Amino acid sequence: MSSAKNVAPPDSYHTQHSPFGAFASFTVGLVNAPGGFGQSLRGPAKQNVYVGFRVGPEEKWQLLPFFTPPKSNESAFTGEAVSSHAPSNFVSLITPFSEVPDPARLKRDAARFHLAPVVCGWIEYDNRKNGAMAELIFGIGEPDLTFRPLDENQPKLEGFACGNEFGYATKPARGVELRLGLDAFEPKFRDYRGIHVIGSESALVFSVPAGQRKRFPLALGFFQSATVTTGLSSSYAYGRVFEDLEDVLSHGLEHHRRYLREAAARDRELKQTKLSEDQRFLLAQATHSYLGNTQLLWHKGRPLWVVNEGEYRMINTFDLTVDHLFFELAWQPWAVRNALDLFVSRYAYHDSLYNGSRPVPGGISFTHDMGVMNHFTPEGRSSYECDDLEGCFSHMTMEQLLNWILCAVTYAEKANDLPWLRRNVGILSECAESMRRRDNPNPALRDGVLKHDSSRCGPDGAEITTYDSLDVSLGQARNNLYLAVKTLGAWILLEHGFARLKLVKESAAAAASADLLAKTLVGKFEADTGFFPAVFEKNNHARIIPAVEGFVYPLFLGLNEATDPKGRFGPLLAQLRKHLSNALLPGVCIDAGTGGWKISSTSTNTWFSKIALAQYVVRQLFPEAMSEAAHGADRVHADWQRKPGCGEHAMCDQIRSDSGITCGSRYYPRGVTAWLWLLE
Amino acid sequence: MSSAKNVAPPDSYHTQHSPFGAFASFTVGLVNAPGGFGQSLRGPAKQNVYVGFRVGPEEKWQLLPFFTPPKSNESAFTGEAVSSHAPSNFVSLITPFSEVPDPARLKRDAARFHLAPVVCGWIEYDNRKNGAMAELIFGIGEPDLTFRPLDENQPKLEGFACGNEFGYATKPARGVELRLGLDAFEPKFRDYRGIHVIGSESALVFSVPAGQRKRFPLALGFFQSATVTTGLSSSYAYGRVFEDLEDVLSHGLEHHRRYLREAAARDRELKQTKLSEDQRFLLAQATHSYLGNTQLLWHKGRPLWVVNEGEYRMINTFDLTVDHLFFELAWQPWAVRNALDLFVSRYAYHDSLYNGSRPVPGGISFTHDMGVMNHFTPEGRSSYECDDLEGCFSHMTMEQLLNWILCAVTYAEKANDLPWLRRNVGILSECAESMRRRDNPNPALRDGVLKHDSSRCGPDGAEITTYDSLDVSLGQARNNLYLAVKTLGAWILLEHGFARLKLVKESAAAAASADLLAKTLVGKFEADTGFFPAVFEKNNHARIIPAVEGFVYPLFLGLNEATDPKGRFGPLLAQLRKHLSNALLPGVCIDAGTGGWKISSTSTNTWFSKIALAQYVVRQLFPEAMSEAAHGADRVHADWQRKPGCGEHAMCDQIRSDSGITCGSRYYPRGVTAWLWLLE
Repeated sequence: MSSAKNVAPPDSYHTQHSPFGAFASFTVGLVNAPGGFGQSLRGPAKQNVYVGFRVGPEEKWQLLPFFTPPKSNESAFTGEAVSSHAPSNFVSLITPFSEVPDPARLKRDAARFHLAPVVCGWIEYDNRKNGAMAELIFGIGEPDLTFRPLDENQPKLEGFACGNEFGYATKPARGVELRLGLDAFEPKFRDYRGIHVIGSESALVFSVPAGQRKRFPLALGFFQSATVTTGLSSSYAYGRVFEDLEDVLSHGLEHHRRYLREAAARDRELKQTKLSEDQRFLLAQATHSYLGNTQLLWHKGRPLWVVNEGEYRMINTFDLTVDHLFFELAWQPWAVRNALDLFVSRYAYHDSLYNGSRPVPGGISFTHDMGVMNHFTPEGRSSYECDDLEGCFSHMTMEQLLNWILCAVTYAEKANDLPWLRRNVGILSECAESMRRRDNPNPALRDGVLKHDSSRCGPDGAEITTYDSLDVSLGQARNNLYLAVKTLGAWILLEHGFARLKLVKESAAAAASADLLAKTLVGKFEADTGFFPAVFEKNNHARIIPAVEGFVYPLFLGLNEATDPKGRFGPLLAQLRKHLSNALLPGVCIDAGTGGWKISSTSTNTWFSKIALAQYVVRQLFPEAMSEAAHGADRVHADWQRKPGCGEHAMCDQIRSDSGITCGSRYYPRGVTAWLWLLE
Repeated sequence: MSSAKNVAPPDSYHTQHSPFGAFASFTVGLVNAPGGFGQSLRGPAKQNVYVGFRVGPEEKWQLLPFFTPPKSNESAFTGEAVSSHAPSNFVSLITPFSEVPDPARLKRDAARFHLAPVVCGWIEYDNRKNGAMAELIFGIGEPDLTFRPLDENQPKLEGFACGNEFGYATKPARGVELRLGLDAFEPKFRDYRGIHVIGSESALVFSVPAGQRKRFPLALGFFQSATVTTGLSSSYAYGRVFEDLEDVLSHGLEHHRRYLREAAARDRELKQTKLSEDQRFLLAQATHSYLGNTQLLWHKGRPLWVVNEGEYRMINTFDLTVDHLFFELAWQPWAVRNALDLFVSRYAYHDSLYNGSRPVPGGISFTHDMGVMNHFTPEGRSSYECDDLEGCFSHMTMEQLLNWILCAVTYAEKANDLPWLRRNVGILSECAESMRRRDNPNPALRDGVLKHDSSRCGPDGAEITTYDSLDVSLGQARNNLYLAVKTLGAWILLEHGFARLKLVKESAAAAASADLLAKTLVGKFEADTGFFPAVFEKNNHARIIPAVEGFVYPLFLGLNEATDPKGRFGPLLAQLRKHLSNALLPGVCIDAGTGGWKISSTSTNTWFSKIALAQYVVRQLFPEAMSEAAHGADRVHADWQRKPGCGEHAMCDQIRSDSGITCGSRYYPRGVTAWLWLLE
């Protein structure tokens, strides 16, 4: 066993170290790879990151492998991995997220604390057992830019910045030396103050005298003051409370302890959970990439919340919003409301439906996203959706309609914001009617399942689901098992939401729709195979795990009546239990080779965020389905993210189940569905 | 001959298409290479540029080779060079520079015209002989960014932008189609308006019906509204008169004819000169790269002029300013004054001198530069100069002292701005005293030649000249022939400048210093070899062309008394004539292999800007020295720039004389010394 273990590639993965809402990351961790400061990027930056130490001025530097050696200073450091000699924990970057109050009401000091575009960290060395001076180094090499020494502008900062946009600093202290030039390790050229400003290799070098142990604080900051978005013109919310990069870095160093305390509290909470080490890693890694994609903007005097879609950088992709929901309700519930409001005010639309070839009135829905790469698309239009398609890039009209309902009721309930739901009751009612019409414009012919595509698809197109890049088992919206159960989830939430608003009639109607749909679903179960088909069409026999996704909402909201095995949906739940028990076996929805979960039996493209969500539902509602293979997959999923196949892009979502190599959705925020595990 | 000619690589070079003062270029031209929009870059951008045509919708596109095919659309176009089928002149980008009045006094309309960060062009097709519809394409592929369609924000523009920072547009017209998506040539995915906003491949496609000839205007724009510099905080001057990128592009299309007229006037002027085709190419190519390095900023309500130093991006490198002088006095003389004023107010310093090992008071001088890459260094400090060095990166105290004098008097005379010179008479007098003290602090021991290094060099260092990367023949400042003749030029100009200010005594003293120095120089001539040594030390026998550089200033100002072979400097001029006649021969300062000029006989590193300047002086003052080999070198120098060895970096300055391949100073502004040729 142990020799087999040695054959496996070592852990090597990037992690995004990201402030809240700055769409910025300091990405580092992949072995022998650059990283560093990146703003609005679709993947890791390409800066050399120098972190290491040496004991004695004649020794070579022992550096963490976060760079590709520039030719100019190749000889200055060893090729050996630092880990063989290094103290285990001599440097740390922290990502201290916390509950962020509604930024519209934040006082200045609180806004500065919560919105600072800064990542804190420290570097230290325990030199108590050595007889020579130890040196630590933290530096960045960025050949396309040059660095300026920060103390020229702000004497309380020792460090460097590229323009006004990013930089790093420590506090001035004895034993802190600036390095800047063509070579930060063996500087040949020094100006009047010992640096060379035309060079692109920068570093802080910290001295720790023999017999001492010293820790030095680090602050890594970002800043963009100008208008950063088009379509809707907006700038960063932090720009209202920070003057410039120097202000950000000074703040980071001043409040360093508080940020470290926050991060320590999060670490402690995570350790106190029942989660395995693999699960903790997955949740932590996912949270880092989520934060790196968050972007809190300011538009016409009000907050504008954005989560960017990883490498695709689409703005508030709605089928991600619905998955970020659980995490966001824990930490910044106003963000959900903010997105929902903008979906109503700018990204709602009304369509027609194809009833055969004849268009008939449809109803309300919402766009797939609000734009891409800092550009907000025009009203009622996404950046993603195209016409006349049956696969990827087609419209997701039904999917996004469900997402608005599910987010709205879940938000109102969890955030205890019934007034908001009441203000939106007209939209909620329109949504209910729109759902029904998409089943069938003729009420007499309804069975609860989506069967009519939006006219936005054009005469030759068909709606798709969020699972756009999978095969038809999850891609096609019409007659789709995943979407039908999600529709049931939406009806259950509508029933509940209308009831909370004392709209008895509407609630009863939603209940009736739920019951009708549940009955239809029960009729789709294949008693002979013990499975639901993935699509109720064309003799489809694919098996899918997201069959249970729709139940996450009543489960999350504690609507026990809906999840009670003996309750009104008991027969359906029993069938889903069988479905899952049969699916979560190697060769069906467990990859026979790797042991990872496959969200569809007929596709090797599997998505971590959706696995995590389904795991929560399965473990809570259908624990019997958790085969030994299903249990063991956490290690597999964690290893995928820890190896370069995914790890070079930080958190990845789309992964080949047979190889563990990512095939899309890199640098991706959606993995925070794993947050649900903390509720188990 | 013709088969030998075919063996030579074809012409292939980038050209910077650049507005005035925007530190921005649309770079294109190198074969099979990307280029495109670049802002504050150290070399060409890496965008695919799609320019081509096809006749008939089934035909493949014939594209100019300005891209590396993205995998997604490789099959869409042929690999054949377009030139085999193409009309000779179907697309043009123009760089219409003109006399720019002092921006401090420009009225709004004039400021918009002169400072617009826009490059105009057109694309056309003569389809009068074809029976099918022709299509033209102009597009950009930029995988790291996405494009937004401009008409969402400004209906009078058809085109695309990346954020607010750059974009291209034509006027809305019949036959203009937008393409945006994963593939601009064969778009598979189209949204409600026929494009796909998440893609990074953008293009305008223009239709020309059979039997017609149509030309479509193009505007390529840049915009940066925020603070762009640190150290001194400033933003672009154009930001005062333009709202945003859309405003820039609309302006470009609105004033398209006027910009084209300006460019045509420049072309006409160039054609009407006596210059050969090679010389015209060199001057045009140099002017393009110069403009791409210009940056007109606004700081505290006033213009702040910067020329960036090519790939090094140093700010107002003074030994470039002195070479740009001739060009700038023709087109924007206020720019020279602006730089001189900032050298006085922020970048002057006073040093000591090493007299043996004993420091004695020195005098005024100026820093090598004002910073690097949009960062202004602190008062009295450059980004380049380091201590304790004898070669590259040492201080250039004497060189920059001379440069201030030479620029100041030349500016005042050519721009007819004696009041400015009068305001600076104190500085001028300080400069004269500083020059004398650097010869020898003891007046009795002076011979006119620099012999004392600035204390800024440290006890172990020595001053260098602008020829920093050459060998000692041009690199060492002390006892250097080039610098001594340049010093003579400075004394001649001081004599003239003081006289113009009616400072008779100071003028006479300068004349005396000039005469003393000339006498010393005459004594350095080697009668046996017919050469001056490059350095009056250590038995140096290198031969250098820049021996004559110092005479460019009196020559340019028409101070005939100083350049008269029968005048007071007659003996020196006669010796220089011999020196040049002996130097401009193959094996000495003509490369025996390539035939190019070598600025030093002992180095293969030769600089085009300095060759061009020397050519002017030699042809004007020492025409007898122009051997046949020396004459024939224009073709060699032009070919160097036209081949990929230099051409992949647009205009290059440092070139290996034995290979024609650049060895530094790429993407470089200094080549506008060739402007002097127009005065011959």
